[in-house]
Amino acid sequence: MQLGMGFWASKTFLSAIELEVFTELAKHPEDIDALRVRLGLNERGARDLVDTLVALGMLEREDGVYRNTPNADFFLDKEKPSYIGGMLEMANHRLYGFWGGLTEALRTGLPQNETRHGQDPLFETLYADPARLKEFLAAMTGVSHGANMQIARAFPWGDYSTFVDVGTAQGDLVVQIAEANDHLRGVGFDLPVVEPIFEEYAARSGPSDRINFRGGDFFSDPLPPADVILMGHVLHDWNLDDKRMLIHKAHDTLPDGGAFVVYEALIDDERRENVFGLLMSLNMLIETDGGFDYSGADCQGWLTDAGFSSTRVEHLVGPDSMVVGIK
Amino acid sequence: MQLGMGFWASKTFLSAIELEVFTELAKHPEDIDALRVRLGLNERGARDLVDTLVALGMLEREDGVYRNTPNADFFLDKEKPSYIGGMLEMANHRLYGFWGGLTEALRTGLPQNETRHGQDPLFETLYADPARLKEFLAAMTGVSHGANMQIARAFPWGDYSTFVDVGTAQGDLVVQIAEANDHLRGVGFDLPVVEPIFEEYAARSGPSDRINFRGGDFFSDPLPPADVILMGHVLHDWNLDDKRMLIHKAHDTLPDGGAFVVYEALIDDERRENVFGLLMSLNMLIETDGGFDYSGADCQGWLTDAGFSSTRVEHLVGPDSMVVGIK
Repeated sequence: MQLGMGFWASKTFLSAIELEVFTELAKHPEDIDALRVRLGLNERGARDLVDTLVALGMLEREDGVYRNTPNADFFLDKEKPSYIGGMLEMANHRLYGFWGGLTEALRTGLPQNETRHGQDPLFETLYADPARLKEFLAAMTGVSHGANMQIARAFPWGDYSTFVDVGTAQGDLVVQIAEANDHLRGVGFDLPVVEPIFEEYAARSGPSDRINFRGGDFFSDPLPPADVILMGHVLHDWNLDDKRMLIHKAHDTLPDGGAFVVYEALIDDERRENVFGLLMSLNMLIETDGGFDYSGADCQGWLTDAGFSSTRVEHLVGPDSMVVGIK
Repeated sequence: MQLGMGFWASKTFLSAIELEVFTELAKHPEDIDALRVRLGLNERGARDLVDTLVALGMLEREDGVYRNTPNADFFLDKEKPSYIGGMLEMANHRLYGFWGGLTEALRTGLPQNETRHGQDPLFETLYADPARLKEFLAAMTGVSHGANMQIARAFPWGDYSTFVDVGTAQGDLVVQIAEANDHLRGVGFDLPVVEPIFEEYAARSGPSDRINFRGGDFFSDPLPPADVILMGHVLHDWNLDDKRMLIHKAHDTLPDGGAFVVYEALIDDERRENVFGLLMSLNMLIETDGGFDYSGADCQGWLTDAGFSSTRVEHLVGPDSMVVGIK
């Protein structure tokens, strides 16, 4: 019953983010009456909402005054650079409704998002509307920020001097790597329309002089050359032929000894444990024509087929792991 | 992130129930290819679906053959009397979509279900369509069966000889109490349209000669007299004035020494712990014009105001507790 009704807690938390409960409470703690007015809430559900957030461990309440828990304050206040709510905003705004079509997707194999009604494929749709594009790119930062920081620290960057992040979105991975490694120069590669959003994000970080954007399409254009090529949450968007094409393109672009880093919510090889990775694969069913998530062993096989001489899998953080291939 | 994306796991489980994964696997275990054909699933998402159910602990997989876990087999096979999936079917079919309007409900205080588009109030809408009525009544059995069994055992039935369950739906509470207590005669009270559904359910149980249905409307008609009056998941549907009216009506109907039993997912008095009770109250925001859930202390206060001489709260099972008032 808890699992089946789990959407109640999930949607309540997503609505709280939409209503900016945490951003408002980050300004100062507040009692229910004042908070209700600040948030524009009707009297009927307001107290149930905030007390649910107390029971879920997202807010604290003392003598009738509500405040953020330390984690909520750090991660869910829109005014802080540590905000990771972008993915949750997109989940609330797009995915919650689209997942209502899961049964149909399972029966038909067809996506259930904007593309369902004969519109253009997902990325053309997302990238055609500036507001939707920005929401999507911020969502990608939200879902990958923890892994990005781990890659910036855990990868043996001392062996290399240049890198390119393919499908870079806002460029958080480029920023994290460059900030943690003074000797590196990095390029973020994505469709040209992403450039101003990347530049805005990169300009807020320290090492912007060692960071550049390159516009292009990874299906029709060559990848920018570098010692290390990274693809995070990219391969899972595409079918197996496209996955293999992208892996080959990375291999062809790298110098001998260069490294290819793929990271995702990799499914465990036994497909028994990483619930988030398996569900992300169902999300690709909802969102794309042929995308799916995969295990580390699956990906190592594709890298070996493409000519990489050695491969390894390393856990990053939470559900995310990376596959590293050396040419 | 786990909380915010929790609707993925929840909706996947609900779709699995809709697709009758557990009912099919209760017939016999099966490998992915045969199971996919039996369930009418497209190849694309089928393996992700069942492996997600393995990772969620709902299925087991050995050498590529999938089978129900013992709990899934007992509770989620539609062919078994122990099936409690009714609530989950209704959650999938009605509530998941309606909860997409939670933010609007919080802003406006207005319900987001069938009644949103100017139709009749909830219960008239639900009760007007036989298929929807049956789904709703079976859902009520699913959400209350565990508590019903506990009330049948834990209440001091030896002190009484008759009882009436007000808003009885399929009559599971009447059946459980009568089965566990040979000396009792019980009445299920609900709108007349419920009678055939009650009779069908009661006929399947043992003590049908000590069980009767009485048709009526608890707003306009008197309650049937009995030593014990029960209301399960009824009071939370209504606003405070209606709650108090129903409590008064129960008090007026009971003999001196008679007992009134109210049970729900009572919110803990501090409103810090019973997440399900708090979320059920938000569900009343989505579903009704003025309903809300409440704590045991709230309810004890209303019973005392209505003239009950003593009251107590007892935990039943899971999120459910009962309030007992003695006249």
